[in-house]
Amino acid sequence: DRPAPPSRRRRRRPPRRRRPLRRRRPPLSLPRPHPAAPPPRRRKPPPGPGGYGRGEGGDGVPGGAGARARRDGPSSRRRLRAAGAGGGGGGGGGGAQNEGGISPAWYPPGAEAKRGKVYLFKQEIDPMFYVPKRIADKSNELIVAVNDFHFAMMNDLPRNEFYRNALAQVITADSAIAEIGIGSGLLSMICASLGAKHVTGIEASKPLAQLAQLNITSNGLQDKITVLNAMSTDIRERDLKHGKVDVLVSEILGTLLLSENALEFNADAKRLLKSPGGHVIPRLGTQFVTLIESDRLDLITSARKWRGLDFRNFNQLKDTASLLFTKELGCRLCSLDPTNISERLPILEVDFAADKAGELPQRKILRTRALRDGTIHAAVFSWEVYSDLKKTHRMSTHYEETVDNFQRDMQWGQGIQLLEDPTQSESKNAPVPLLVKKGDHLIVEIRIAQEGAVMQCLVRRIPFQSPEEAPSSSTEPSTVDPQ
Amino acid sequence: DRPAPPSRRRRRRPPRRRRPLRRRRPPLSLPRPHPAAPPPRRRKPPPGPGGYGRGEGGDGVPGGAGARARRDGPSSRRRLRAAGAGGGGGGGGGGAQNEGGISPAWYPPGAEAKRGKVYLFKQEIDPMFYVPKRIADKSNELIVAVNDFHFAMMNDLPRNEFYRNALAQVITADSAIAEIGIGSGLLSMICASLGAKHVTGIEASKPLAQLAQLNITSNGLQDKITVLNAMSTDIRERDLKHGKVDVLVSEILGTLLLSENALEFNADAKRLLKSPGGHVIPRLGTQFVTLIESDRLDLITSARKWRGLDFRNFNQLKDTASLLFTKELGCRLCSLDPTNISERLPILEVDFAADKAGELPQRKILRTRALRDGTIHAAVFSWEVYSDLKKTHRMSTHYEETVDNFQRDMQWGQGIQLLEDPTQSESKNAPVPLLVKKGDHLIVEIRIAQEGAVMQCLVRRIPFQSPEEAPSSSTEPSTVDPQ
Repeated sequence: DRPAPPSRRRRRRPPRRRRPLRRRRPPLSLPRPHPAAPPPRRRKPPPGPGGYGRGEGGDGVPGGAGARARRDGPSSRRRLRAAGAGGGGGGGGGGAQNEGGISPAWYPPGAEAKRGKVYLFKQEIDPMFYVPKRIADKSNELIVAVNDFHFAMMNDLPRNEFYRNALAQVITADSAIAEIGIGSGLLSMICASLGAKHVTGIEASKPLAQLAQLNITSNGLQDKITVLNAMSTDIRERDLKHGKVDVLVSEILGTLLLSENALEFNADAKRLLKSPGGHVIPRLGTQFVTLIESDRLDLITSARKWRGLDFRNFNQLKDTASLLFTKELGCRLCSLDPTNISERLPILEVDFAADKAGELPQRKILRTRALRDGTIHAAVFSWEVYSDLKKTHRMSTHYEETVDNFQRDMQWGQGIQLLEDPTQSESKNAPVPLLVKKGDHLIVEIRIAQEGAVMQCLVRRIPFQSPEEAPSSSTEPSTVDPQ
Repeated sequence: DRPAPPSRRRRRRPPRRRRPLRRRRPPLSLPRPHPAAPPPRRRKPPPGPGGYGRGEGGDGVPGGAGARARRDGPSSRRRLRAAGAGGGGGGGGGGAQNEGGISPAWYPPGAEAKRGKVYLFKQEIDPMFYVPKRIADKSNELIVAVNDFHFAMMNDLPRNEFYRNALAQVITADSAIAEIGIGSGLLSMICASLGAKHVTGIEASKPLAQLAQLNITSNGLQDKITVLNAMSTDIRERDLKHGKVDVLVSEILGTLLLSENALEFNADAKRLLKSPGGHVIPRLGTQFVTLIESDRLDLITSARKWRGLDFRNFNQLKDTASLLFTKELGCRLCSLDPTNISERLPILEVDFAADKAGELPQRKILRTRALRDGTIHAAVFSWEVYSDLKKTHRMSTHYEETVDNFQRDMQWGQGIQLLEDPTQSESKNAPVPLLVKKGDHLIVEIRIAQEGAVMQCLVRRIPFQSPEEAPSSSTEPSTVDPQ
């Protein structure tokens, strides 16, 4: 039993570290605006130290993180955290310069255009373990992402039907179509089967592009669909078989509407449309937030008493700042028996054919009233998208509407952030529950970072007053500073 | 709208990258055995290239990854992947040398003894966002871990009752007790409330140790419990108020029984027991695997046909090698309507008072028979622990037994690995479903890496034959090489 010779030993690799790649994480660095776009508006400074401000930062210019990442050397941990592979929905900025439109802030999992070392699946699993040959040499990031959400996504049949219905409205025998991010080729094949003249399917990951081609050929659609293995931002008119297209279709929607930078990619890809009046599918989208009560959620997010022992000091460590995705919770939101304490509140309404990511607000103040007595345990983020300006067809991630769509919860889910009463918590060094009475005025502040890819919700309650006492809208505070 | 001055700009930090810290991930490097322990047996080489072997590696000596991590400079990505903060249940090897017993291979989240840069919560969240002061300057790794599982764990009341019952059996007014990893102080407070003379609560994270002290004082138990902020491996007899103890209690159980290196920490801490006959709680544990069928699981892990289009080539990317934790799936295992195709098969039976991590097998071959016709979609890993040698009290993570224990599924859950038929898949470059008939002989090979912290399951089916045709046990293959 002598040790293996050194040459064999060196082949051993560190054991695999699973970084579950939730689809639809916030991108890892601030998007850099299109060079031709107007400079983004300067961010509104946060309230001072007496308010929600953090006493430093918060008023820089977009692009700071990306710039920092690029200044750092490739071996810097900071850079890895900002742009490393494996997390954050597929990695962040710092990619190669493109030759077409913008330089994207976010690359999908497995995109070869992204800079940085690629770790193969076989390198990330314990060397004692069996690895099927078909995945051994694929990018680990890609395999994790595909297994995390692609299969569930492809089997989200109402999603497929939404796209089919939206496409059927506009496709004719003359239609030339481009799809951004074809994955398995599913949407491009829908286009072809609906009788389009030609589809250009753009896919940044080579293994996905190859598998899409295989699927397309298996279905006899190879004459109708051309697969291009590139970032959409690198595609020019000359790359398209019939030149500019009539329809631009994509499904680059995250758990938050803009988590995968759909606005940025669509705004860029409009270069490829024949006319500004060309079809962009989906055309519209709305990001919502809803305030919920859930005792079941509270059961896994708070310390309590038991058998006369009191553990509640432990609540000091409760994280009421981070946005999680419900897949990270480990259970479906609808299984938490939530009750809505507020209406579903629209935060952003987006036109994918017209809006630019750099023009999004950084802060929104929403006003609403409590629908019932209760405790607001969390803010839930969900969205709707629409086929066209008339909103003929609609698809959503609202938990009430995914109860019978298990697959959708397993791919998009919802965003969730625990809440506390910020006006009382700071002085007590512990989170104070956000108790409300029916009719209470609620001021909901939404902070929007990274061009909509991440958000934060802060809620302040103004106790219900009789009509003559109620503040007029002009005297309501315009931000949510603690009193 | 001029840009902020450079000094302010530099304060901007990269946006937060959420690395959800599942409790109970496999540790990130191979445990290094206790210096005094016998050298671990050399690993049995995997089958050759024609079998499950991977053509390289797989036959090195344990400790390779740790050694590699230590050879690399601190800025190496490899080192970060092997020992970085934030993932893998709290980080891996490369920690400081201890002065007591072993040099642990795994550090719990937030342990200050672990080497490497600590990222604070406020550094890991977008600078535009509000952060409560109480968590802003805490270790991000700690906050993520606490919010991922600590609250659910503390509210897993059957867990608390198991420990209370187990402790009540052995605690007298003369008992001196040590607890490894007190967290909120819950188990130490149970000991004190049961009338123990004194409890030493050992906690590696300073913020947790402080909060535990606060909880203990709030409950008036400060004279009964002494909190020590250290790794248990650094504690010596002189650190204990009454010298060596009568009872050693811990809850360092992972999603796999040994994911948090309970065997290693208990084996070390036995130094602190008065006699080899002292009580170790829990005393015994068994790791199980069960083969299941679940059409609902298959719905989110396979590509299919839809409206005449065939996407099944995409199944080439299916990951049948990785062990996931059910929390990563995004839904509870019991919600997937699983059916057991095999009995629950014991893999390892562990005595926490006697066994050593370095003596675990690296491979186990289990033989069983299919309970019914069906498709084996996955292997489910769950465990049982017992209070004492008589197994008076028992606690488990079996999905059948957590149906009414939501909190347990939200902290431990189960391990799950997708399966294919390996004897057919390699030649087809696609995973072939593992179809079985009732009575089929099943050969279940379990590969055990990192001293039990990670495992892999491989299943081969031998079609049922009439008794006279059935292979005798001597002719059954001793490993699961594809035919």
